[in-house]
Amino acid sequence: MGTIIIAGIPGAGKTTVIGKAREEVSVKFVNYGDLMFEAARSRGDVTNRDEIRSLPLDLQKAIQIDAAEKIERMGKVVVDTHCTIKTPKGFLPGLPVWVLERIKPEVIVLVEAYPSEIVERRAKDQTRIREKVAFKEIEEHQLMNRISAMSYAVLTGATVKIISNHNHSLMECVRDLVRIIEKGD
Amino acid sequence: MGTIIIAGIPGAGKTTVIGKAREEVSVKFVNYGDLMFEAARSRGDVTNRDEIRSLPLDLQKAIQIDAAEKIERMGKVVVDTHCTIKTPKGFLPGLPVWVLERIKPEVIVLVEAYPSEIVERRAKDQTRIREKVAFKEIEEHQLMNRISAMSYAVLTGATVKIISNHNHSLMECVRDLVRIIEKGD
Amino acid sequence: MGTIIIAGIPGAGKTTVIGKAREEVSVKFVNYGDLMFEAARSRGDVTNRDEIRSLPLDLQKAIQIDAAEKIERMGKVVVDTHCTIKTPKGFLPGLPVWVLERIKPEVIVLVEAYPSEIVERRAKDQTRIREKVAFKEIEEHQLMNRISAMSYAVLTGATVKIISNHNHSLMECVRDLVRIIEKGD
Repeated sequence: MGTIIIAGIPGAGKTTVIGKAREEVSVKFVNYGDLMFEAARSRGDVTNRDEIRSLPLDLQKAIQIDAAEKIERMGKVVVDTHCTIKTPKGFLPGLPVWVLERIKPEVIVLVEAYPSEIVERRAKDQTRIREKVAFKEIEEHQLMNRISAMSYAVLTGATVKIISNHNHSLMECVRDLVRIIEKGD
Repeated sequence: MGTIIIAGIPGAGKTTVIGKAREEVSVKFVNYGDLMFEAARSRGDVTNRDEIRSLPLDLQKAIQIDAAEKIERMGKVVVDTHCTIKTPKGFLPGLPVWVLERIKPEVIVLVEAYPSEIVERRAKDQTRIREKVAFKEIEEHQLMNRISAMSYAVLTGATVKIISNHNHSLMECVRDLVRIIEKGD
Repeated sequence: MGTIIIAGIPGAGKTTVIGKAREEVSVKFVNYGDLMFEAARSRGDVTNRDEIRSLPLDLQKAIQIDAAEKIERMGKVVVDTHCTIKTPKGFLPGLPVWVLERIKPEVIVLVEAYPSEIVERRAKDQTRIREKVAFKEIEEHQLMNRISAMSYAVLTGATVKIISNHNHSLMECVRDLVRIIEKGD
């Protein structure tokens, strides 16, 4: 069994699901953003994470590749990352082709929830933009994640597994993830 | 005119539509799953179809390539296959890039129907999971098929043609398919 | 900042938005269809635009590449084009991989509107097919555009920016586009 990617938009509950799953499996989890930051810092390019996005595109690409090669050398691992990142310039693919061909994922897991649930979860953190706009934007972001995940799959042969993390069903979602990690089906 | 791919989820009526279309055109139809099984059996890897999915991934890839090369040598042909296969590990792309670059499709035809129609057609075969879940899952699978088809198109330049096989309009659907096969438009 | 692609289906208002944006920025705009026609005509392949689609596929591909290489040599430019073209054979990707690897877009902007708005705008031009069919087809085409745009992004690392051009909010849409062109965010 190869590398597993886990992604989900803010409020889908990815971090909670991963936290619970780690209690049940022995496989290593890594955060792709952390690895990118490490790679960028050790190259002397940045001193904090937010600076990465301001670097020239060629340099960002080199950092992405450094981090991907590190994952490649790890063997079986679960990578916590983003399918697409919502930026002011639009949806940025988290795993462009030069990252994919190094990570070679076997399964891409998307943690999803209903837009209404995500609006509600986000509202607990802070006061937010109008609910109706938020709802539409969440639908849009989850769609763009499905699309990019399936695109990644076509290029790598990975499967795309959608697991639902609805209110009051966290443990079912965790069980689905653990099953994928442990048995590969 | 090059190779035409036809795909559709269970219950969309792909087999019926293909059966009717074959009565009207002279072009050769092949089933990609059959060709994969033949390739696997002649390599001595399996004795029945279901064993293919349990083989190591590298071997599955070699079998996919064998079958795709066979199609490549056939000239104009209609390939009956799946855009994505729903597995316990998620949606598996039926035509990953190493298959696409050999088959080089010119048109990818998706046979679709309303989720309500597909639920109903499937129910005729067997008692099934709750209708509401089924409805959502069918919508999801048809979406993942559209996404993978369009991804295939970007890599090959093929067109993606959606033809609707709604209740009581089978012959319109067949006519659409025949038109694509015969005239290329 | 690199090349920006702008696409949108008929009735989304792409041309109007581009017209307004050009009044505010100094960057060069080109139309990909025009460049393809120029390339085809100077090769002696066609005398009018409509002939291009009837040429053998290899020749169409060569013309697409000629036009893409011209854009490549232009430096920063905004390219007015289509994500997918709706043809009788299905949705044709406007930017297949051999075009993408030359244009190397940095942002892909999709101009969208509600299907109801697009139906209404199209109706002003001519009498049209039944509204309900049109609505469904518009939704489908906008979805296929999002899918192809995200596929393009995975292959190039571009972002996909959706900007809404709703009735009575043209200037907000123009402002969004100008911001992307000028500042890259």
